[in-house]
Parts: sequence; C-alpha cells; structure tokens
Amino acid sequence: MLELYHNDMSVCAAKVRLVLAEKNLEAKLHHFNLRKGDQFAPDYLKLNPNAVVPTLVHDGRAVIESTLIAEYLDEAFPAPPLRPADLADRAVMRMFASIPDQGLHAACGTISTVVAFRHQFLALSPEELKRNIEETPDAARRERKRLGIEKGMDAPFVPDALRVYDGALARMETRLAHGKPWLIGDRYTLADVGLTPYVTRLAHLHFDGMWARRPRLAAWYERIQARPNYRAIRDFINWGYIELFDKHGPEAWRKAQAILAA
Amino acid sequence: MLELYHNDMSVCAAKVRLVLAEKNLEAKLHHFNLRKGDQFAPDYLKLNPNAVVPTLVHDGRAVIESTLIAEYLDEAFPAPPLRPADLADRAVMRMFASIPDQGLHAACGTISTVVAFRHQFLALSPEELKRNIEETPDAARRERKRLGIEKGMDAPFVPDALRVYDGALARMETRLAHGKPWLIGDRYTLADVGLTPYVTRLAHLHFDGMWARRPRLAAWYERIQARPNYRAIRDFINWGYIELFDKHGPEAWRKAQAILAA
Repeated sequence: MLELYHNDMSVCAAKVRLVLAEKNLEAKLHHFNLRKGDQFAPDYLKLNPNAVVPTLVHDGRAVIESTLIAEYLDEAFPAPPLRPADLADRAVMRMFASIPDQGLHAACGTISTVVAFRHQFLALSPEELKRNIEETPDAARRERKRLGIEKGMDAPFVPDALRVYDGALARMETRLAHGKPWLIGDRYTLADVGLTPYVTRLAHLHFDGMWARRPRLAAWYERIQARPNYRAIRDFINWGYIELFDKHGPEAWRKAQAILAA
Repeated sequence: MLELYHNDMSVCAAKVRLVLAEKNLEAKLHHFNLRKGDQFAPDYLKLNPNAVVPTLVHDGRAVIESTLIAEYLDEAFPAPPLRPADLADRAVMRMFASIPDQGLHAACGTISTVVAFRHQFLALSPEELKRNIEETPDAARRERKRLGIEKGMDAPFVPDALRVYDGALARMETRLAHGKPWLIGDRYTLADVGLTPYVTRLAHLHFDGMWARRPRLAAWYERIQARPNYRAIRDFINWGYIELFDKHGPEAWRKAQAILAA
C-alpha cells in the first residue's frame, strides 16, 4: 500500500505525483495545509524529521526527499521505466534530476515568496506576521524571510535566485540541442519529471518570458503539458494561488526582466 | 577500460578512488595540476564542461559528478555491492551520499581556502594574484575568492560554511545512534564512501575537534581509516599540502571554535 503526504501546489510533491501517475499507481493522499503547519505535527515528524512534504509511505516504511522518492518508485515499480537502461545515460539523467536539490529548489522558494506568497504574509495582522517570522528556526532563514516579505522583488538575494533559475533553464536548452523530445533522448525519464514542476511554477508566476528565447525548452514544456501524467499537476491546482500569481506576477516579471538584463 | 582524471587531494576525486579500490578495479590515472589549470584544457572540457575533476571514462564514454560516478561504478561493477539491496535503505543511502552536493562540498572548499589554500595565493606576486582572481569567471565567486584570500577565517561567509559542515557531522552522529558500524547499518555503502573525504579533510586541517563530542562519528572515522580501500586516500596524500595544513590549521581551529561556540 502506498500513501503520500503532500500539498497541492508544492513543487516537490508534484514531482512524486507525476511518477505515480505515469506508473498508474494508486496512493492514499494526505493533503497538508502548510500555512497552518500540518507538517509540524509530532506524528508526521516521526515520518519526516525535516517537516516538509512529500513523504511516501510504502507498506509502512517512510521514504523522504522527492528526488529519492522518485528513484525509489522507479526501482520498486519498474513499469514503465523512468530511468535509462544505459548506465552512462542514467548518470546524466540523475544529474538533471538533481538540479532542484542543488539550488533550484531554494531559488524557486525565493522567487515564489517575493513575487506572490509575501502577500499572504502581508495580509496577516502585524502581531501574527511578527510571530510567524520569529517562529522560523534558523537565524539566517528568518532574516531572509523577513527581507523577502518586506522588500519583495527588491530583496538583495533576488538577483542570485533569478540567475540560478536562469542557469538551470540554460542547461535544459543546451541539452535539448540533441533534437530529441526529452532531456535524455527519446524516452521520458526522471530528469523530465524532476524539472517539470519548476518550469510549471515559472509559467504560473507569469515568468514564461524566461524561455522566450529558448525555443527547445518552450517546445519541451508544451510536450510535458500534453502528457497524460501532467494531470498530477493540473488536477491539483489551487486556484487561490493562481489568482495571487495572476495579480502580482506580471509586475514582478517586469522587474525580473530588468534584473536578468543587467 | 577505465580512466580517471583526478587530483591527489581533491575530495571528490578521492571519493571515486575509494570506490575503485573497494572493487579492486584498475583505472588508468591522469593526474591534473589544478593550480596550473590542467582542467581548462580544451580536450578535457569536451569530457567535462564543468572544468573540474574527477571524470571517469569507461570504454570511451565520460561520466562526470563524483556522486553519480560512484553510483555508476556500483551499477556497472556490482561486486562487492556498495548500495543496500533494500530499496528504502537505498534511498537513505542516497540521502547521505548526496550531502556533499547540497552545500557540504562548497563549505569544504571555503574552509580549505580560508585555512590553508589562501597562503598559496598570498605567495604569488601582487600582479599574479590580481590576474588569478580576475580570471575567476563568475562575479560573486570572484568576490568570495578575493575575500577568502584577503581575510581568511575572518571572511564574512566562514561562520555559515562552518555551520554547514557542523550540521553534516551532526546528521552523521545522529544516524550512527543505530549502533551499527556504517551509516546505513552493517554494510559499508556509498554513504560512507561519499562522506569519507570530507571528514578526512577536517582531520588534515586540524579541525578534528569537530567530533570531540561526537564519539560515534569518531569511532566511524577510525573504522574508515582501517579499511583497505582507504589506501585510495592515504597513498595519494600531497605532503606539501599537509605541511600547509599543519602550519595554519591549529590557529584557524582556535578561531573556528570561537565561531562555532557563538
């Protein structure tokens, strides 16, 4: 039996849902409200001490970290395979699949916060906002959160986050010069799965200008959305979030363009 | 046929040599002088566009990124296995094996530079030093290099790098509470392999005080050094570097203790 602790708009939870959908696996879904702090419940911390989603529980055993859950699922449920049989290609697949873990995930959190989520915090009462910020455990992360909420796109770490995102997209565009439909070639793999939610997030934020001059990436993203397993993202869209993105994305994108052009 | 492009004291190259030694695999070694810039040779960039070591070439195909090379070697040469057969354990193994890729490797570079390598740069003529710094491609990395060379342990990013290192050691100590000899249990795996060079580097830098109150990690490191495959580190020690570490490590460690205690 499979259970997934997830959140509708969490990029890493979406990654695991894409794998489940591709393999037609049924999992019992537990949806967490991350703004209410479901992820800090003591019983959940026993499964996932990092207090984040997703967590997969398979026959009673927990597996954490979305990139590793994806590879776990491909080993435990091999059909259809999402890893190339060729071992050198498999190493390249892992390199692309792990891009989120090497800075892109953090950049995605930063950009999502300064463009949109900050407005959820700014809607709190001053006391609630103060408490929420003070509850953030690590001092550096606390200060970063405070600055992101306060300054939005003008926060000092935004240019770096944009560059990390832009660098990841550049690597995808370069890779796709092989002329084949998917990152590793003719077969859809965990490399495509792993990057799908991060490209989707940019599109939701009205930052799709980031591939205006990357035609291969643009075509890849079209193909990604046409795949049946994309329902794992489409069917879980939180429209309140999309409304927030629609409201604040276009102006933020104008600022982002200026930063990226600098 | 296996070929390895490496450097004697490179932590990630050591990781691959540990795997080769464990599996009794022979590889033709190409030693790179990274201070002279061997890694920027056009022919090498075709194998490894990141201009770093290690690169493994197996029957003419290049595999890059040491964590991925290690898993590649375990898939291509399964005996003795360095990944647990149990898939949930394997996910935990990958989590520990990838700690270097999620900040620890960068922290190791920072600490090594501000403790010791800066003195190699400070021995250059002012013009050579200036040119070397200006050749660093990325603006943020250039500024970081300049500050690290100039200020050593007093550079502003040192506390953060120390905390990243300390956090990784804390995770290892917590994990080893299972009372078994290796990170994943009774069998030595790629998790142990992956972290060995990073713990070794601290020991070389006279920073072994970082496990003075971590008895399980201390005992693990003793076991690690007693393994036959540790020759992959011991036989490649560059004694000029050790001399530099011996000269500057103890004083740096006193500063590090104060930072960690803060």
